[in-house]
Amino acid sequence: MNWKRWKAVLAVFGGLMLGCQTPSSGIGSKVFVVERETGSLAVYDFVERKLLPRRITGLGNLRHATMIFSPDLRYGYLASRGGQVSRIDLQKLELDGVVFTSENSIDNAIGGGGRVIATAEYVPGGVTFVDAQTLEVLARHEATYEHEGQRLPSRVTGIVDAPGDRFVCVLIEGAEIWLIDASKPDFPITHRIPTDQDNPYDAMITPDGRWYVVGHMKSDRVSVLDLTRPEAGIRNVSLRDPKIDYDRKSPVKLPHLASWAVAGQSIFVPLVGEDRLAVLDRQSWEFKRSIPLRGHPVYAVRSPTEREVWVSFSGEEDDAFVQVIDTESLTVTDTIEVGRRIYHMDFTPRASHVLITANEDEKLFLVNAITHEIEDVVELESPSGIFGVWRAFRIGL
Amino acid sequence: MNWKRWKAVLAVFGGLMLGCQTPSSGIGSKVFVVERETGSLAVYDFVERKLLPRRITGLGNLRHATMIFSPDLRYGYLASRGGQVSRIDLQKLELDGVVFTSENSIDNAIGGGGRVIATAEYVPGGVTFVDAQTLEVLARHEATYEHEGQRLPSRVTGIVDAPGDRFVCVLIEGAEIWLIDASKPDFPITHRIPTDQDNPYDAMITPDGRWYVVGHMKSDRVSVLDLTRPEAGIRNVSLRDPKIDYDRKSPVKLPHLASWAVAGQSIFVPLVGEDRLAVLDRQSWEFKRSIPLRGHPVYAVRSPTEREVWVSFSGEEDDAFVQVIDTESLTVTDTIEVGRRIYHMDFTPRASHVLITANEDEKLFLVNAITHEIEDVVELESPSGIFGVWRAFRIGL
Repeated sequence: MNWKRWKAVLAVFGGLMLGCQTPSSGIGSKVFVVERETGSLAVYDFVERKLLPRRITGLGNLRHATMIFSPDLRYGYLASRGGQVSRIDLQKLELDGVVFTSENSIDNAIGGGGRVIATAEYVPGGVTFVDAQTLEVLARHEATYEHEGQRLPSRVTGIVDAPGDRFVCVLIEGAEIWLIDASKPDFPITHRIPTDQDNPYDAMITPDGRWYVVGHMKSDRVSVLDLTRPEAGIRNVSLRDPKIDYDRKSPVKLPHLASWAVAGQSIFVPLVGEDRLAVLDRQSWEFKRSIPLRGHPVYAVRSPTEREVWVSFSGEEDDAFVQVIDTESLTVTDTIEVGRRIYHMDFTPRASHVLITANEDEKLFLVNAITHEIEDVVELESPSGIFGVWRAFRIGL
Repeated sequence: MNWKRWKAVLAVFGGLMLGCQTPSSGIGSKVFVVERETGSLAVYDFVERKLLPRRITGLGNLRHATMIFSPDLRYGYLASRGGQVSRIDLQKLELDGVVFTSENSIDNAIGGGGRVIATAEYVPGGVTFVDAQTLEVLARHEATYEHEGQRLPSRVTGIVDAPGDRFVCVLIEGAEIWLIDASKPDFPITHRIPTDQDNPYDAMITPDGRWYVVGHMKSDRVSVLDLTRPEAGIRNVSLRDPKIDYDRKSPVKLPHLASWAVAGQSIFVPLVGEDRLAVLDRQSWEFKRSIPLRGHPVYAVRSPTEREVWVSFSGEEDDAFVQVIDTESLTVTDTIEVGRRIYHMDFTPRASHVLITANEDEKLFLVNAITHEIEDVVELESPSGIFGVWRAFRIGL
């Protein structure tokens, strides 16, 4: 073999070697940040405090995109709004496969011990189950409801995994909660539980996997289902503060239920259009009190210590600020200015820092959770949701 | 170049390629199981349900060995009894470096954002701080106490990381809790808090990182420190059941405090030599009640749902059994026979399964947390502690 061929062979091997180099850091401290307008994911390492130079692109319409992770941390799965589920290889940090489950989807969850991805869909309404390895569609449940003697399609939202190898979701027009057995090949719907009120629009599960909470349009009450006793049905929980006079014509609006925080003895509920957090008792679900805030809250995020909840706001005058709530005294202990139009916040797993995206300022901030100093800033394009791989180890995420 | 040389080159490249192959599964679902008598770690994947054929060996005396993980999941650090800290490469699953910090150590913790390993030591008594990257010793605090006008060495135990970038440990002969600032290069001891009672022998931190609990030899009371208000000092909490008549001559013995479970509204304390769990109130630390058991409890382990606690036992007649406690009704709901001399248990992160080592039977079991069926068994040599990488994302582990 002459030197030219030899060089060619070396180049091929060299390239392969480069492609499989042992990375200098692991996957544990990586967070994926949705860049909404460019349909891409940025990758930030909060230990190295470095943004990876390359983006993961071609991920579709990323409004309300959610990302879940396989239990072995081999893959992430990003559900776009356009029905696209993108698999991300967590070692290579690149797009590894795509499957379209519908025309319009809203949410996804991982179950069956990590073998199945389930997506909740608006058009056509239903739930699709995808093999997490092959990305093949395994099954599909059409969601319908009866209206004046006709069967009509219903949108589905709020899909989560729950203890006992189940998926849980809610039918918007159908006003029905579904419990689905994720361990069986045909994913049978084991329970169909009416939500009592109409127009559910979103749902969440508490971090212990016990309570499934459904929000309703134009209602001041949420439906709460005890997943350890689903046959008991839902109960209605009010978010009204009995001490406040309401204009009964103006509906109570609720933000996405993923914005609720469960911490200490309380559940903290940001109320759209009001300048307060509603605080419910974690055990009884009874209204405890309101916490007055500087503006209209959007997200309440708990620290892993459960000792603090950090709140973001809507509205130009407030959306650059975060207020820190002490979960024991139920008071505001600090107000921090971070960056304009804060979209998302998440604590690092041992509560040392908070990651915050400011969409208008196009920045990701790393804020010290103790001193409240901004310790790092990186530039991103229209940053939105923040997803750390530790979600793999938490029920319902 | 002739064919022989060409083959040699290929072999080298082939070997390198093999060495850096992308593994078929990720690190998230791997658990490291201490094989006590052989000084080795076995690696089991609970998703693939496979034991890796190769052991990681040469790790020293692994009695009471503990393993911690770097926040980026690049490394694990195993503290042996003989003062050896072994770094495990989590991608290659092999020994990557060793440092000896003392002649006899008991515990380790990771702090400073993953940059520092701290080990608690018996001989010589103190705390050693090691650079997590270079494995160099960065600093050392000698632990001493005053006895009849003399300064004598004290053993140190129960080292954990705590919110606020701190390490916490306790001096056995010194009867003093140390709070250490992990963010400063010389690791200053910021608080030295007397434990009131003598002879602390072990300690634990609650999963929210708030309470540091110290057990004392021959005492029925533990010292509890609120780490958010350390200047307030410790309070004494009794584990006696007021309804039980005790022979005051027989001391209450407590097992290792890592065996306590904090779940739901309660703290579950296994009491050595008694056939009950003591249940304390999670808020007030007051004694609530006893739960009668089939034998003498050793470990109480909570499910991530906090809805159940699983209890193991000592004594030939009981040590093959696990009892399941409902944390709401505070009753035993099931008794499961697993394997002889159960040493350790841990739930998988989403609460689907429990990993259990049976030392006498030399087996690791994967038990379904819902059906209580044994779904997988692998043979190990003298298996003991079980350490999943998700510990990287939990305060105090």
